[in-house]
Amino acid sequence: MSVVRGIKLGVAQAGIKKPGKDDLTIIEIIEGASVAATFTRNAFCAAPVHVARAHLTASHHLARYWVINTGNANAGTGDAGMHAARATCDAVAELAACSSEAVIPFSTGVIGELLPAAKIVAALPAAFADLKAAGWERAASAILTTDTRPKLVSKEIALGGGSIVITGMSKGAGMIRPDMATMLAFVATDLGIDAHALDTLFRRAVNASFNRITVDGDTSTNDAAVIAATGCSSVNYSALSVSDQSRFDTALTEVCIELAQLIIRDGEGATKFVEVQVNGGATPQECEDVAYTIAHSPLVKTALFASDPNWGRLLAAIGRAGLERLVVENVSLYLNDVLIAEHGARAASYTEEQGVAAMAPEDIVIRVELNRGNAKAAVWTTDFSYDYVKINAEYRT
Amino acid sequence: MSVVRGIKLGVAQAGIKKPGKDDLTIIEIIEGASVAATFTRNAFCAAPVHVARAHLTASHHLARYWVINTGNANAGTGDAGMHAARATCDAVAELAACSSEAVIPFSTGVIGELLPAAKIVAALPAAFADLKAAGWERAASAILTTDTRPKLVSKEIALGGGSIVITGMSKGAGMIRPDMATMLAFVATDLGIDAHALDTLFRRAVNASFNRITVDGDTSTNDAAVIAATGCSSVNYSALSVSDQSRFDTALTEVCIELAQLIIRDGEGATKFVEVQVNGGATPQECEDVAYTIAHSPLVKTALFASDPNWGRLLAAIGRAGLERLVVENVSLYLNDVLIAEHGARAASYTEEQGVAAMAPEDIVIRVELNRGNAKAAVWTTDFSYDYVKINAEYRT
Repeated sequence: MSVVRGIKLGVAQAGIKKPGKDDLTIIEIIEGASVAATFTRNAFCAAPVHVARAHLTASHHLARYWVINTGNANAGTGDAGMHAARATCDAVAELAACSSEAVIPFSTGVIGELLPAAKIVAALPAAFADLKAAGWERAASAILTTDTRPKLVSKEIALGGGSIVITGMSKGAGMIRPDMATMLAFVATDLGIDAHALDTLFRRAVNASFNRITVDGDTSTNDAAVIAATGCSSVNYSALSVSDQSRFDTALTEVCIELAQLIIRDGEGATKFVEVQVNGGATPQECEDVAYTIAHSPLVKTALFASDPNWGRLLAAIGRAGLERLVVENVSLYLNDVLIAEHGARAASYTEEQGVAAMAPEDIVIRVELNRGNAKAAVWTTDFSYDYVKINAEYRT
Repeated sequence: MSVVRGIKLGVAQAGIKKPGKDDLTIIEIIEGASVAATFTRNAFCAAPVHVARAHLTASHHLARYWVINTGNANAGTGDAGMHAARATCDAVAELAACSSEAVIPFSTGVIGELLPAAKIVAALPAAFADLKAAGWERAASAILTTDTRPKLVSKEIALGGGSIVITGMSKGAGMIRPDMATMLAFVATDLGIDAHALDTLFRRAVNASFNRITVDGDTSTNDAAVIAATGCSSVNYSALSVSDQSRFDTALTEVCIELAQLIIRDGEGATKFVEVQVNGGATPQECEDVAYTIAHSPLVKTALFASDPNWGRLLAAIGRAGLERLVVENVSLYLNDVLIAEHGARAASYTEEQGVAAMAPEDIVIRVELNRGNAKAAVWTTDFSYDYVKINAEYRT
């Protein structure tokens, strides 16, 4: 893990979670850095999401502090929740002598209970005292709710003018326990880049990574992914050659994809890591429609849990994805590299033994060839296991 | 259960299922009756669905025989499956001395294995010999796959000119075992009515009933609902008063709703029967979008299994249903008649004890008031239980 010049992280115990658990993280960003962010599209978004959006706009994306609490999502909390989120930002601003609008809040944990802002305010000095460039590893653990492991990814690349670092951490859409639903990702680089260009690159990276993962199709009220570019390296994006700009873009996307895939691998009761590839569509949208219909099908997901090469359920999912004038005879279906079905029926070459072998590993690729165009899409997902039901049916206590 | 004049039913054992199990049903419709039908919108629809559509068109909806087998869906079977479906119809036509196009085939059972048409052909004489008006009860059992009970509904109503009967039977979208996915419904009335009017009324009734039930959002390759109107009563639809026409329409819809709800109550590992009501929408479509998003949410369904009044998951599902400019502060949420959430937060009057009490019964109503229009929609669904996973993860044997 490489530190990012211009970024410091500090952790404390505010007592929102059980005593002795890190539950408060501060990330300090050097003055003049650019920040970009994407948030949940859920209409019932949480108070910190509302406040974060407003503060990013008011500060012209020149945020100085990200403040993250676990143990409470501050969602479904109405006006009182908005007040609590703002009070947290005000307290950070007072300690740091910056404006409240330069502080961006993030919360994850139980829905519908008021955020204990006073506990956070009381613990902030300890978090500030802990700020250090090497704080990534402790922070990557502190932002978890009931994920089973921290998710930290770092890349260093040499570009014209010097080398730069991209480091990020995420927490899971695990739903490992009820109401712990949120995906959060925090990424930083020491590249210099203006906020507008950073926003464009980051949205593209998020779309190719965090927007491609699905556990159960349920969008959290608190999802957020943010990036800060500190400019503390000797490299500025606008001075790079086109090919070096592209190398940065690729590295950023790779970091986001790795962080996203770590979330899926640590998913709620997951026993499989599944990539659904849909190729040969007329448009990227219809490829996504097919991929998500497969990825969200409870019948496909329970078959994956059983390691059952149940191609009938896959064909049925493709068939109900809503594609106009789909010629089913042209569709081919593969599990890993085994041709399972074509011409609307089981492939002549296919044997059940091949299917069983293809379904045995933890990592599985389901590949659909639509054969009606050149568009493609891929999403990553997991199976539905007994543990998924157990985890999500446990009463909130 | 009332018989329908002009309709006879016969059952036989073709040996598609285990020996000793009824698996073949013939329904004979008097000459001159009107027939209407709706089928799955899944692009990978089964061979019998293709043949049924073609025969209904060719016969101008004057079908004489419905032939139904269980134990094999004849889906994902390509050209060979089409040949097998047609061969079954040809054999019925030869025995009955009618055209092949007057025979409509239905299949339900395992996907991807060739229909043993020869076994069906061999058993047809026994099914014909069994034809009788009182055959509904045996037939209602013979069309089941792994449903746990037959689903038979009958209504008799007095209209101007005499009384008429509507009787129907259905089988489940139970997925009680892998690949046993199909919902089938067969309805008959002795009312006289032309095929075009029947089609209009039946589509409306299906839309208010079978199209409102969802277990897991997976649309079968074989779903079908059909109706025959024999005209054997003294009552003709076109001669009825507007209010009597409306009474027939209502009774038909009620029969379809009861048959549909019986399917949900017999669903895969279901422990709850849930009605999701969404009122006060700008359009019926957006009410449906919200209702289905709730009904398909694995997090809501596992909370229902746990009898957990988890209103945060309900708000999150409403919020991700894709409604434009949804003002979440205007949304109210009820469990049965208990106000759970309003103004974007837990209702001030709500207590956890009320929520627990509301979730305890088998029958639960989730009601969403959007407060932005006069449209509404309702769907019926079940919970997700351990048994759902168990049933659907068992290897196909």
